[in-house]
Amino acid sequence: MAVVVQKYGGSSVKNVEKIKNVAETVIKKKEAGNDVVVVVSAMGDTTDNLISLAGNITQNSDKRELDALLSTGEMVSASLLAMAIKDKGYDAVSYTAYQIGIETFGEYGKALIKDIDGKNIKSSLKEGKIVIIAGFQGINKEGNITTLGRGGSDTTAVAIAVKLNGICEIYTDVDGIYSVDPRKYKNAKKLGEIDYEEMLELSSLGAQVMHSRSIELGQKYNIPIYVGLSNSNVKGTIIRGLNKVNMESKPITGLATSDEDVAITIKEIKNDINLISDLFERVAGKRINIDMISQTAPIDGKVNLSFTIPKTDLKEGLDIINQFCSDKSNIAIDEDVTKFSVVGIGMKTTSGVAAKMLKLLSQNNIEVKMITTSEIRITCAIKQGDKIKAINIVAKEFNL
Amino acid sequence: MAVVVQKYGGSSVKNVEKIKNVAETVIKKKEAGNDVVVVVSAMGDTTDNLISLAGNITQNSDKRELDALLSTGEMVSASLLAMAIKDKGYDAVSYTAYQIGIETFGEYGKALIKDIDGKNIKSSLKEGKIVIIAGFQGINKEGNITTLGRGGSDTTAVAIAVKLNGICEIYTDVDGIYSVDPRKYKNAKKLGEIDYEEMLELSSLGAQVMHSRSIELGQKYNIPIYVGLSNSNVKGTIIRGLNKVNMESKPITGLATSDEDVAITIKEIKNDINLISDLFERVAGKRINIDMISQTAPIDGKVNLSFTIPKTDLKEGLDIINQFCSDKSNIAIDEDVTKFSVVGIGMKTTSGVAAKMLKLLSQNNIEVKMITTSEIRITCAIKQGDKIKAINIVAKEFNL
Repeated sequence: MAVVVQKYGGSSVKNVEKIKNVAETVIKKKEAGNDVVVVVSAMGDTTDNLISLAGNITQNSDKRELDALLSTGEMVSASLLAMAIKDKGYDAVSYTAYQIGIETFGEYGKALIKDIDGKNIKSSLKEGKIVIIAGFQGINKEGNITTLGRGGSDTTAVAIAVKLNGICEIYTDVDGIYSVDPRKYKNAKKLGEIDYEEMLELSSLGAQVMHSRSIELGQKYNIPIYVGLSNSNVKGTIIRGLNKVNMESKPITGLATSDEDVAITIKEIKNDINLISDLFERVAGKRINIDMISQTAPIDGKVNLSFTIPKTDLKEGLDIINQFCSDKSNIAIDEDVTKFSVVGIGMKTTSGVAAKMLKLLSQNNIEVKMITTSEIRITCAIKQGDKIKAINIVAKEFNL
Repeated sequence: MAVVVQKYGGSSVKNVEKIKNVAETVIKKKEAGNDVVVVVSAMGDTTDNLISLAGNITQNSDKRELDALLSTGEMVSASLLAMAIKDKGYDAVSYTAYQIGIETFGEYGKALIKDIDGKNIKSSLKEGKIVIIAGFQGINKEGNITTLGRGGSDTTAVAIAVKLNGICEIYTDVDGIYSVDPRKYKNAKKLGEIDYEEMLELSSLGAQVMHSRSIELGQKYNIPIYVGLSNSNVKGTIIRGLNKVNMESKPITGLATSDEDVAITIKEIKNDINLISDLFERVAGKRINIDMISQTAPIDGKVNLSFTIPKTDLKEGLDIINQFCSDKSNIAIDEDVTKFSVVGIGMKTTSGVAAKMLKLLSQNNIEVKMITTSEIRITCAIKQGDKIKAINIVAKEFNL
């Protein structure tokens, strides 16, 4: 009997009616002869409401207590869904992280799953029960409640699918993964399937469909992940390993943009690898995500150094940078930045993709401020005003 | 260093402002040199709201899932209070039932505490932390979340005081225990102290100030329980063992009334102890609380049998009674019943209290329908219309 692990997001369980609908979908899967495990998020805006409640108590909420607080939202929806399933005559049981031994490590608010005991899940499935699990939460070695970060229920679901060697289905409020955000490019095509690596790049580049760590986990254990609408005949997208299948097909699978970053340039900094790595270490030490690092060739032992950091971390980042740069007039901040990225495992075997894209942008008078590339990704920093134009040109050219 | 276990009810933590007030009160107690443990209820109407959410999912909510659902309310207030205390510069930590090993047994919705591990509480106190505990919840041997019944946070608090050999303070929305409900008798006196047994009788007779089981637990382990307002200079009431102190004082300490029951009389039932005990067993088997049993002397081998049951259980009770009584015209139901009780450990040594009370009622034309007594309690069933008159007469005569 196949084990199917389904995950329903906050919008799928946002009220009583929606929870009853999920109960019906889950029962259908059970009736089709599967063992069914369901991971749920908190109802609708519950997590945001709890965060704002904590914000009214203190401007600086204790991270352990915040995790304990937020973990309650998923417990509520898990219990209600179990009740709804039992009401329809099927046996069900809800579990919290400690009841099924989801052990975590790392920091509060972004803990990582170390292992899942899973004995209770297996024995409940054996008894014919539908198992409902409160997503997003775990218990660390010291017995404290931790959460996995925003969207962490995706990771709970994939981790359980790994543990049970099952199939993973992520039900959300979008009907699949698109080559380009359909809100930004109306001709965007939905992908039937996408490789883990491509999806990872897209996730980290601003396509907020899934929790990145859930994809890493799926890739590591080779668990296919279906993403789509629940209770719908519209087909979603399967995320899986495509390395061999699709290598000859089109070089670019998807496109993503993000306006969340700011570009910082430090002019005429001493070309000292210790100094520069020390700077980046200090910034990273504050958990500030540095991206798009580029450095000019040295002139007179000095270089220009550019990189991006999230806008929200600008103040904290500058505090550190100022300590490395005696002359503040040498620090330039550019807030008019859109990170424009194309992703595709086809790039590994198709050369000239970067050149083609840059030419396309320049022909259309789109200024490229910075460029970085990986094996399967090209990212350009462009002006925010050029974003829509760039999306349309590139999406059309590469048939996204 | 004394350990003080404080319990704050739902109205004391009903919003952010109230939680901040509680944080201040708790800190004062800590500053005064005590180890402080705080047990909290869910915020305001949270539990009722969760119950109604479950009611919208199903008319027949699974008891295990309902307990898991309701347990979240106390986790929310515990985390928020810990944050509020930390915000004011004091160290605090919140714990759920499983984190401090509150082991329960018995049914969902009214589980009983078997033991508390308490190691985490003690080590946190040793580290100078204020410990906040989610009340009302426990974990049974199978690892399921259970709740202790409405008002169960009182019992959590007393149980923890027992475990830590501490002092217990219950903060609620009344300023102490009164001889008579002040809403029913405006001259009611607040008691400086009351014996466990008296308080138990009053609780079971409709004075809803405290969870009965918390008082039993206090009595069993001789832990004094203070009941009063938080953040107030008004003195509350201490519940403790008074057997020796007060035996010579007034015979009646308190008075309570309840309109929740209905009297049932079965006429001319066969005077067969097996038959009658079988009837009561069957009724009790449905968890229907039988009270005020009285039986007339047999005539021709037949007796009249009267007793009360809660109004809410009338239908279920009658289903059973009908099976024992072939002639339904022999079953009389009287819904116009107030249970009128006086309580006092002084009764053990003062004779004639019952006679005096009955005379008083009859002189004032108050019909007494049924009477039952215990060592420290006299209960009469009277008409509901006579309730206020009876309260005034008896309270005045016995100086309550």
